Amino acid sequence: MTTNAQLLFNQIPKGEPTPETFKYNTENKIDLEQKLDNGAHIVKIICVSLDPYMRGRMRPAEVKSYSPAFELHKPLTGHGVGVVIRAAADSQYKVGDHVYGMVPYQQFVLIPGQQKVDEESKKFLGPQVGLRVIKNEEGLPWSAYIGAAGMPGKTAFMAWKEIADAKKGEVAFISAGSGPVGQMAIQLAKADGLKVISSAGSDEKVAFLKELGADVAFNCKLQSTSHKTDDAKKIFAEHGPIDVNWVNVGGKSFEEELEFMNMHGRLIGGWISAYNGESYGVRNLFQFVAKRLMMRGFIVGDFEASLAVLQQNINAKYVDDFYATIPKKLAFGDLKFKECKYDGLESAPKAFLEMLAGKQSGGFGKVFIQVAADDSH
Amino acid sequence: MTTNAQLLFNQIPKGEPTPETFKYNTENKIDLEQKLDNGAHIVKIICVSLDPYMRGRMRPAEVKSYSPAFELHKPLTGHGVGVVIRAAADSQYKVGDHVYGMVPYQQFVLIPGQQKVDEESKKFLGPQVGLRVIKNEEGLPWSAYIGAAGMPGKTAFMAWKEIADAKKGEVAFISAGSGPVGQMAIQLAKADGLKVISSAGSDEKVAFLKELGADVAFNCKLQSTSHKTDDAKKIFAEHGPIDVNWVNVGGKSFEEELEFMNMHGRLIGGWISAYNGESYGVRNLFQFVAKRLMMRGFIVGDFEASLAVLQQNINAKYVDDFYATIPKKLAFGDLKFKECKYDGLESAPKAFLEMLAGKQSGGFGKVFIQVAADDSH
Repeated sequence: MTTNAQLLFNQIPKGEPTPETFKYNTENKIDLEQKLDNGAHIVKIICVSLDPYMRGRMRPAEVKSYSPAFELHKPLTGHGVGVVIRAAADSQYKVGDHVYGMVPYQQFVLIPGQQKVDEESKKFLGPQVGLRVIKNEEGLPWSAYIGAAGMPGKTAFMAWKEIADAKKGEVAFISAGSGPVGQMAIQLAKADGLKVISSAGSDEKVAFLKELGADVAFNCKLQSTSHKTDDAKKIFAEHGPIDVNWVNVGGKSFEEELEFMNMHGRLIGGWISAYNGESYGVRNLFQFVAKRLMMRGFIVGDFEASLAVLQQNINAKYVDDFYATIPKKLAFGDLKFKECKYDGLESAPKAFLEMLAGKQSGGFGKVFIQVAADDSH
Repeated sequence: MTTNAQLLFNQIPKGEPTPETFKYNTENKIDLEQKLDNGAHIVKIICVSLDPYMRGRMRPAEVKSYSPAFELHKPLTGHGVGVVIRAAADSQYKVGDHVYGMVPYQQFVLIPGQQKVDEESKKFLGPQVGLRVIKNEEGLPWSAYIGAAGMPGKTAFMAWKEIADAKKGEVAFISAGSGPVGQMAIQLAKADGLKVISSAGSDEKVAFLKELGADVAFNCKLQSTSHKTDDAKKIFAEHGPIDVNWVNVGGKSFEEELEFMNMHGRLIGGWISAYNGESYGVRNLFQFVAKRLMMRGFIVGDFEASLAVLQQNINAKYVDDFYATIPKKLAFGDLKFKECKYDGLESAPKAFLEMLAGKQSGGFGKVFIQVAADDSH
């Protein structure tokens, strides 16, 4: 038997999560030599993602929301990349295949050939048709496939295609611009010929926004759900109005932004700041009428290639577009990305709390956990 | 010289309008025998519309909004129907033509052949290409053409086509259901095979909602910008969730409705209650993400047939569709409508204030002023 360390959901947080929300469990074991049949395989996890939306899953199971609650005393689940280290003769994977998808946060995962997904998960993920094999001919670090070439990158790419209706010369505002979604969104907006205003929570991050191509970048305090009011208003007045607004921050900031939206503006709904609840009430929604604004909430899971997506006849072509173009551009440097690595599942509680606070000790960018070395087999 | 009585904008209201907001001026005169040339014509006004959006125009000229401010000490302007009583030889109209469009609220209007529209008005209305000739082969009262077959009817018709994306079997919620937009919206939703929940502010209105076809109708207090909470929540829980929400009321009601929206729901933005300012802050906009909701503000002026609309290549075909189908259905009783008539421009202040309060002494329905008899020439 081999140790199969896990990151468990230990306690439902009241308000902000704390270190006690998690438990790093080293007592779990797995038999890596067990007999495999019926398409089963064992995946060794290389890296897993930490994302703000996971905060919303840290709730009592009876509270319904758009993503399933984490199960208490079970491993957290989320996006990860691993390598198949054993496979039954009839498995759809072969040893050495690198795979991407939703996985439990532990070192090894035994996946039965017919993966069973509970009803709640189906709503969120669609019945998984298995993990996606990633060839990585681009030679990117595997972590890129859970970041810029993974869920956050897809969020930016697909929401931009689906909602932005971007026209050359328009103005985009992208808050949380140094985060994994924001990074990509800034570059997509620039590629479409828009003027980009972006904000982030430190001067170092602001410098990075400019490196990504933002025309106007400013330092705000996203974690307080409010821009430094004077700065933001001045900047919007000078460089706005905003045609496409990537809404990452609700409350007072959102209210301010509505005042500076252009006629027929589009708002892509993200609301990172709402994961801990909304305390500020928005009082100027009449702007939607006055300026004929359009806002649409977006969750990338609706557009990932799953049976649910295909059955609903939602445009699943975004997925192929994405994998055909984005990893190459990342590898060639046509698209930049910045990651923030934490080593080992034991570092995940610290990493998650720092991420929510926007103060990663390892620097900003896409937060992930390196569970095993990239070249491990 | 003939008396040409006017309804003037007398005073900018602080908060709610009052009788002093208006002035009925009988000292204005017009020379009905004057020489007309260059395409000019004189229109005798038959009826004019009073609409909640006009509240927003009662503001200082320097405050920008989606519709131009009324000019102090000048007549109010809005939708009206009149009859051409004199026309220059080269006028595009002939004597006896009935016409519909934006007019000053007075008994007679001299219209120069090349109508001059100020820049502000252009933004709202588009450069008017003249008033629309209404044949009225259906024999409807002329007031219908500023109500169910006019601006409010078009609002319902065009917003429904443009935004609702209605599918048979879905659930629509239409607040302010007894108003001119709501009346039409209920019937359009039923015609598309939806289950309709609707609300209004009195038991008499509720009975009318059922007459219009609403499957579920309840009494709320729209004017307080809040449903009777228990009633609305119970009804939404039993008969919802809501797929298409015609948002007429902001604030707390809107917040409640968001909780009962269905996944991928659509919200048509109207916000009548916001015309006097929004006092209640909405705290659950995260629902837009959780349920992938789409909301779009709508103003019918964007879709009325004007040069601006045509130039922007917006789908102006709605206008022809509307006039080809709706007046006939109204005449045949396939679509019901209810009006509330006030006689004479002198009654307009009272009518407007009663309309805003939702308490018309003449009964509920589309509020209009009969300025001259329907058959007057």
